[in-house]
Amino acid sequence: MSKGVTPRSKDYSKWYTDVVQKAELADYSPVKGCMVIRPYGYALWEQIRDFLDKKFKETGHVNAYFPMLIPESFLQKEAEHVKGFAPELAVVTHGGGKKLEEPLVIRPTSETIIWAMYKKWINSYRDLPLLINQWANVVRWEMRTRLFLRTTEFLWQEGHTAHATAQEAEEEAHRMIHVYQQLCEEVLAIPVYVGKKTDNEKFAGAENTYTIEAMMGDKRALQAGTSHYLGQNFAKAFDVKFQSEENTLEYVYASSWGVSTRLVGAVVMAHGDDQGLILPPQIAPYQCVIVPIYKNNTQKEKVFSCVQTLEKAFKEQHIRYFTDNRETVSAGFKFNDWEMKGVPLRVEIGPKDADKNGVICVRRDTGEKYFQSIDSFIASCKNTLKDIQDSIFQSRLTFRENNTFDVSTYDELKTVIDNGGFARTFWAGTSEMENQIQEETKATIRCILFDNTEESGHCVITGKPSITQVIFAKAY
Amino acid sequence: MSKGVTPRSKDYSKWYTDVVQKAELADYSPVKGCMVIRPYGYALWEQIRDFLDKKFKETGHVNAYFPMLIPESFLQKEAEHVKGFAPELAVVTHGGGKKLEEPLVIRPTSETIIWAMYKKWINSYRDLPLLINQWANVVRWEMRTRLFLRTTEFLWQEGHTAHATAQEAEEEAHRMIHVYQQLCEEVLAIPVYVGKKTDNEKFAGAENTYTIEAMMGDKRALQAGTSHYLGQNFAKAFDVKFQSEENTLEYVYASSWGVSTRLVGAVVMAHGDDQGLILPPQIAPYQCVIVPIYKNNTQKEKVFSCVQTLEKAFKEQHIRYFTDNRETVSAGFKFNDWEMKGVPLRVEIGPKDADKNGVICVRRDTGEKYFQSIDSFIASCKNTLKDIQDSIFQSRLTFRENNTFDVSTYDELKTVIDNGGFARTFWAGTSEMENQIQEETKATIRCILFDNTEESGHCVITGKPSITQVIFAKAY
Repeated sequence: MSKGVTPRSKDYSKWYTDVVQKAELADYSPVKGCMVIRPYGYALWEQIRDFLDKKFKETGHVNAYFPMLIPESFLQKEAEHVKGFAPELAVVTHGGGKKLEEPLVIRPTSETIIWAMYKKWINSYRDLPLLINQWANVVRWEMRTRLFLRTTEFLWQEGHTAHATAQEAEEEAHRMIHVYQQLCEEVLAIPVYVGKKTDNEKFAGAENTYTIEAMMGDKRALQAGTSHYLGQNFAKAFDVKFQSEENTLEYVYASSWGVSTRLVGAVVMAHGDDQGLILPPQIAPYQCVIVPIYKNNTQKEKVFSCVQTLEKAFKEQHIRYFTDNRETVSAGFKFNDWEMKGVPLRVEIGPKDADKNGVICVRRDTGEKYFQSIDSFIASCKNTLKDIQDSIFQSRLTFRENNTFDVSTYDELKTVIDNGGFARTFWAGTSEMENQIQEETKATIRCILFDNTEESGHCVITGKPSITQVIFAKAY
Repeated sequence: MSKGVTPRSKDYSKWYTDVVQKAELADYSPVKGCMVIRPYGYALWEQIRDFLDKKFKETGHVNAYFPMLIPESFLQKEAEHVKGFAPELAVVTHGGGKKLEEPLVIRPTSETIIWAMYKKWINSYRDLPLLINQWANVVRWEMRTRLFLRTTEFLWQEGHTAHATAQEAEEEAHRMIHVYQQLCEEVLAIPVYVGKKTDNEKFAGAENTYTIEAMMGDKRALQAGTSHYLGQNFAKAFDVKFQSEENTLEYVYASSWGVSTRLVGAVVMAHGDDQGLILPPQIAPYQCVIVPIYKNNTQKEKVFSCVQTLEKAFKEQHIRYFTDNRETVSAGFKFNDWEMKGVPLRVEIGPKDADKNGVICVRRDTGEKYFQSIDSFIASCKNTLKDIQDSIFQSRLTFRENNTFDVSTYDELKTVIDNGGFARTFWAGTSEMENQIQEETKATIRCILFDNTEESGHCVITGKPSITQVIFAKAY
């Protein structure tokens, strides 16, 4: 167990906060509910951002930037939307020393300001589809906050698209939830269930909300990303019509979709252990850390000749690395430090290793420690990193499969939720029943699965035949 | 003259606004003083950001993210700082439906919140230097706004560094102003004067402010970036001390530095003409645009075979390009459109060109139009782009040199300012004299030049001997 970190088994929530702070991912700020994302945490977000930004552009999207301040009246134009967000708003009442005529809210999400602009930009079918993404900060006033998972201000991206047909907008919402799935599974090594939200859980203003749901280390669910088919709701609220190819005037169809810095929290909770973070190589800011070990200048010279060989190879192979040259701390301190920071592969080089033209490798995911000649290390490093990535994903998949239980009665469902885990079952109940289950068990329907494990079954509550398979779980 | 664009000679200010809107760089939003950065404008900002972010990392900096909301009391801790920013603040008074105990301001700049955190993070000389940058939005309540140049909300980066010695912090401030110079001259093709601000013009809370000053197309100055040596001002305000190597307790030394989306406006004003934008290839989102021209399918097939050859070559050479396939608009419309958007090189391919295995090239900067065989076009394209980049910079440099006048009397100075241009002169006056000149001429000292053209001279006002050479100009 690492110094100052509460064991996971003792207090999962405290373990999480300890790791986030000790690994220097984030820190509490003097502003209630707001956090500081520290450089190492921000580097994780940069990896996420770079992957997504590339994917967005490959799928035809462009970035733009819309004002953060939104007239309060805009939110009121879509009835469900304002109901969902009104309680969470931060309100600017004064600017430049004067009271404002109309208060401005800090965006909790940008549908309203963006659709006010789309009204100016969309006239004809030739202007469609409009595929815009924005990287931005948003503010939602939260009573109970937690670093990365729920903070008053957070960073995210929000895609807002406009289409000529309902089908296109629906396809877009599906396309993007699968981009998020790819991010989670291929980059973050977190398997996700993909599906649709029930009416109870959908976005305020959406027709349909799609979601990816991940299992954290404590067997609770984390909503890792959502995309929404908005129908014509915002087009109607902001009167956005287009002239169709058939020369008729039609309301535009919309989608929106987003993921946030909460994903950094997901990485911590999905993979971390009592020694700290475990980072999949794809997202690790440093994939390898080199720790040179020596006691005098002769040893130092010998060791650094090996270090240089490694650095050259890392550069050639585009492997992200860091050489820990610090003279003021011990090798042992460095080992702990980089374990806490979850670097996938540690390479130790002492004088004896250098004499043998080799290195000691330590895998963060398995703890495995072995000697390798420099040549074979260099030749196999890319593969080792790939193997670490795959192993981490596989172990998370196994963990999830072992903790997802098919239930067919409410008692079984309650037992699963009590013991921890996901309950998979068929559903034909009402919103009210869903609410009651939440009251009794704290669990909600995380998603209606896109991919059923069985074609049909009977509803866990009503016993009615159903083809709707859902996941129940307690969630962050 | 392009349709709907006011000629520069008629009304420069209106020309600017027309071009920004017609080129779809930005649009007015429904929120007073706030603009929408449209995808093409945001793409310019992305080029700037990518260049700088790489430079920052190469010079040892890391990115982080600090809260946008700052307790009002924090700003009051540094006397000069609050005086400078208090009139421009946007204030959040309500959150989550309740009145806040202490109002929060939206950051106009982040020194205060960052130094509140540095107090937690800095204890020893081992923690220094701390070299952090942030990409963020900021809000400064402005009475008179102009797209990109002065808006209530804007995007920028702000570097905030902490050092053990004054010398290191000063070196950092100098290093970063030269990074900004490199951005302007090498990427944006805008020559800048580099120097120091007078006390009248320096940042609220700084000991020294360094600046780069560019000449716009109307011969006015635009401050394109600043860096500040902050001394121990913020360390003292937030009580940030460190244990030195000699075991003494010392206040930390600081620098901060930033550039903003205003640079996009600078690109428009430095290079644009009555046909619209002229983009230097280094910053152009598309460096080449291909316009295929055909009347029937036979022609189309022939033409597109050439298009494919070009596209392959562009990809191989990492040239950013766009093929304008639109079927709903004419070739002439496309020519105007891409001229408005300032694409450096237009490549037209009609059936006759295809027959001759060639293309028509049109340079945006010179208007030059010429036939080239496809092979020689591909072989020379990189060089042509480089030549365009250099030519644009050279023409701006010539323009600036032709409009920078050495003056030795106040009358001469007034004449230069009246006629438009920069007045270069020696200075040994007081702040009061500077204020008076501003009142009488609207010109300010843009900078005390780092590189004098002459070693010494006599002050334009007092006649005293001086080694301080300055630039006077009207500024945006």
